[in-house]
Amino acid sequence: MALPVRTSMKRLLCSIQKCTATQNVRTSTGESTDKDWCGGRVFSGIQPTGVPHLGNYLGALESWAGLQGKYSSVLYSIVDLHAITMPQSPAQLRDNILDMTASLLACGINPTHSIIFQQSQVSEHAELSWILGCLTSMPRLRHLPQWKMKSKDKREGSVGLFTYPVLQAADIMLYRSTHVPVGEDQMQHLELAQDLARIFNNQYGELFPEPQALLSESRRVKSLRDPSSKMSKSDPQRLATINLSDSPEDIVLKFRKAVTDFTSELVADAVIQKVAPIRAEIGRLRADRTHLESVLSHGADRARQLAAPLLAEVRRRVGFS
Amino acid sequence: MALPVRTSMKRLLCSIQKCTATQNVRTSTGESTDKDWCGGRVFSGIQPTGVPHLGNYLGALESWAGLQGKYSSVLYSIVDLHAITMPQSPAQLRDNILDMTASLLACGINPTHSIIFQQSQVSEHAELSWILGCLTSMPRLRHLPQWKMKSKDKREGSVGLFTYPVLQAADIMLYRSTHVPVGEDQMQHLELAQDLARIFNNQYGELFPEPQALLSESRRVKSLRDPSSKMSKSDPQRLATINLSDSPEDIVLKFRKAVTDFTSELVADAVIQKVAPIRAEIGRLRADRTHLESVLSHGADRARQLAAPLLAEVRRRVGFS
Repeated sequence: MALPVRTSMKRLLCSIQKCTATQNVRTSTGESTDKDWCGGRVFSGIQPTGVPHLGNYLGALESWAGLQGKYSSVLYSIVDLHAITMPQSPAQLRDNILDMTASLLACGINPTHSIIFQQSQVSEHAELSWILGCLTSMPRLRHLPQWKMKSKDKREGSVGLFTYPVLQAADIMLYRSTHVPVGEDQMQHLELAQDLARIFNNQYGELFPEPQALLSESRRVKSLRDPSSKMSKSDPQRLATINLSDSPEDIVLKFRKAVTDFTSELVADAVIQKVAPIRAEIGRLRADRTHLESVLSHGADRARQLAAPLLAEVRRRVGFS
Repeated sequence: MALPVRTSMKRLLCSIQKCTATQNVRTSTGESTDKDWCGGRVFSGIQPTGVPHLGNYLGALESWAGLQGKYSSVLYSIVDLHAITMPQSPAQLRDNILDMTASLLACGINPTHSIIFQQSQVSEHAELSWILGCLTSMPRLRHLPQWKMKSKDKREGSVGLFTYPVLQAADIMLYRSTHVPVGEDQMQHLELAQDLARIFNNQYGELFPEPQALLSESRRVKSLRDPSSKMSKSDPQRLATINLSDSPEDIVLKFRKAVTDFTSELVADAVIQKVAPIRAEIGRLRADRTHLESVLSHGADRARQLAAPLLAEVRRRVGFS
């Protein structure tokens, strides 16, 4: 057990230090996007799980912030339509949406540079998803590995859980996005979006670019209690996950109890330096729900301005108008 | 072969004569709604197949017209989102939507008494469908007989074809409809809507009535060329189906060639009397696309006025707002 744990700690430290210096992402074709102006449009979504953990930050959010200066248009969506594919407490979900909004802002997503919005506030997502579902074969979805995995323990899951990769494709395509920051576990879902762009273009004429993956160079951050699994919000072991809302004392304690025999203090200090300003900003932003709601409302207005004409064009090509 | 053919002809004549005198429908609990003021809200949808045939008219549309005086609110939707669950030519689909609009008006659906609208113009249908899909289990859909039947020849069909009963439930529930005119082959789909109303109410608090079926007393009209199958728009035998746009000469010819040995002239005369004024009105209305489009646009505005507050309430209960 010792070796993988040490490796994990070193990797974590490396991620933290590297990300402090520069944002590294590479496209799925291997091209570095480190210093260049890339043009194009970035879209990504994050589930409203409340305040994110360190794994979300290092694996995604920190590089999201860095993409703002490199692409001409950047959209980040809090994907509440995806969240309800698993059971949710409504009051908790509402709080989580606002906490995630505060966290995105605190992590450096700037609502004047990016469009930050709540997915369900833009009706075109569900509408395009229906149309794309009519172009998707049942076996295509059934063979996706996430469905196989998630449905195993849930008596086959809900229809929403089965069809959510189609909604993901709609999320991306609705903005004619060219680049999508994804984890490697989401690559097959992005491939579905690429296929659906091709299928639509073949059937109704060229409209959608084939979106390209932006793979983060940060490796996945592992659980502090079990280095064989990744850090996760839903980990039943409270000490396994560093949240961006954790105090320095919480962080020190969690590293002290981590399944490791050295480097914990050195890593804890680096994490505290990283997390402390974000934590303070999340605390400040969380106190003003009205402001967070207005950020989302403004973001949804801007997203709709892009989505509405695209969907109107789709409707025309399909024969609805 | 002779006996079922004669039976079919007699039944057809009986349907025509009965429907001329009065509109008979019964609820799924057997209660007659013949003369009473029933209150409540009726919703039904029809696919945009162009000008309907005699089976559509006697089996559904004639009784739809009669429901207008009996329920406090009546909505009829041209369900284009359902149409694309099977391949469509876009130009043909657009024409079919307008032809169906003309036909509904010609069959006595009055846009001041009923809300006539095109499903895809009201974004809340797709949105509610997504939410309901998250409350529907995969096995519940997989066991519906229409999926089993339709998917057999289509290499399992599309995701849209699989999930369309959930969209049907959303169509009904979006208006908190209490009564739904359906054919017996759609009863299991209505039961899904009833189940979803119960599931939503249990989980999020009472909101939706359980919609009740209005079963037409008209039996299904059979193909003129094969009395073992029902009259259908997609019948490859042109002589098998009487369309509401058929001329008296077409109708006489089709009955003369029908698989029968008597009563054809007697039935042809009755059908011509029924169809001729509808045909003339369809012809008149089809010539003015702008008028038809404005009927649909006005209907969509009225439908949205009902749908938007309901969806806002659903969103609030689910935790989106």
